[in-house]
Amino acid sequence: MYRFFLQSPPIGNTITISGADASHIRLSLRMKPGEEVIFTREGVDYLSKIAEITPTEVVAHIIKTEPVSSEPALNLTLFFALPKSDKAEAIIQKCTELGVKEFVPFLTKRCVALPKGSKTERWQRIAEAAAKQSGRGVIPKVSDVLRFDEMLTRLPEFDPAFFCNENGGERLSLPAGTKKAALITGAEGGFELSEAERIVTAGAKSFTLGARILRCETAPIAAAAILLHLSGDI
Amino acid sequence: MYRFFLQSPPIGNTITISGADASHIRLSLRMKPGEEVIFTREGVDYLSKIAEITPTEVVAHIIKTEPVSSEPALNLTLFFALPKSDKAEAIIQKCTELGVKEFVPFLTKRCVALPKGSKTERWQRIAEAAAKQSGRGVIPKVSDVLRFDEMLTRLPEFDPAFFCNENGGERLSLPAGTKKAALITGAEGGFELSEAERIVTAGAKSFTLGARILRCETAPIAAAAILLHLSGDI
Repeated sequence: MYRFFLQSPPIGNTITISGADASHIRLSLRMKPGEEVIFTREGVDYLSKIAEITPTEVVAHIIKTEPVSSEPALNLTLFFALPKSDKAEAIIQKCTELGVKEFVPFLTKRCVALPKGSKTERWQRIAEAAAKQSGRGVIPKVSDVLRFDEMLTRLPEFDPAFFCNENGGERLSLPAGTKKAALITGAEGGFELSEAERIVTAGAKSFTLGARILRCETAPIAAAAILLHLSGDI
Repeated sequence: MYRFFLQSPPIGNTITISGADASHIRLSLRMKPGEEVIFTREGVDYLSKIAEITPTEVVAHIIKTEPVSSEPALNLTLFFALPKSDKAEAIIQKCTELGVKEFVPFLTKRCVALPKGSKTERWQRIAEAAAKQSGRGVIPKVSDVLRFDEMLTRLPEFDPAFFCNENGGERLSLPAGTKKAALITGAEGGFELSEAERIVTAGAKSFTLGARILRCETAPIAAAAILLHLSGDI
């Protein structure tokens, strides 16, 4: 069944949408009153029957309300140093499918310069599309690109915070009952030693992904898959 | 240090290469006699010093011979149903980095038609480039595209063979001491029920990657990362 994320909560038993999703239902999917769709907002699925389709709006009535069963128990935030070209898109798309809850791109000394103009909106759309396609209950949030210092100030929110350190560390393991964790990965050139030290000083724990050198887009995908496996979500 | 895979074993203490790698050393890297490179063949690293560079050949002398430490203990073969566009390339590249030893693309009823002309050579080159970049000790073998029936005949080689079944199964787990395993994943549309049944009848064990729907290129990367984590290789 088709799934759409709601930007505002239902009013009583009724859901009214406009904009891109309404056009998609009317023009691309050519749906008709009586057909069923799922609207999702903040981890809740609203199974609904379309009541009316106008050129600007789709109105539907809720048949059944239930919590989304597909959200991982582990609340995982990925801090990733900004890579070249469209690798950020691949990271956001695939880690959204796996179950990451928030993305925080940040800058390191070895990152190439900030892309001209913010890409946050584009990345947020990629997260939304991947959330729809994979049946997520929430759209992961994509943060604006943070400076290295700003990124560090967010790390104390997380325990554990796992730092993918090319200089080595322990294998990934997750304490039983962990509800919230962060994962920190580098861009193409990795981190300067001073940056790595500051990440560890901020409370993150170095880990290794083994003896092979992973590309900067492969490492977060692999590490997220392993952490969500360790939490029982995959 | 730069790494090149040898197509034939060294003769005594001497390594002589020609072709693309020799041109790369001479023209792109502009290396000179006296500089060191690593030649690798069948899990052995030959740390070598370049002795002579001619327009057609590079001759080097072996300084040190040692087993490659980066090869995973788990011998993992990935059978993947042929996906659309260049997704096969992403699967081969990223799973080579992670440590997969052999790739076997195969056809299912929901695959689009075979690409015009074989892509095996191209895919083999992608595996070689990823093996070099990630520091692998062997170049993973990429098989020709097999028919579904042919693929089934290879499964009895593997115990366990893990089948990524969209209809569900157990979470991935690896019996202690497993040395060899297979992973079987689908293309965009998944498998027909009759195909899924035949894979299970051939001895494979259904597993699930959780409640979210993964893209056909994300599933093998995630499952390979998890299996190589469970084997202690990641």
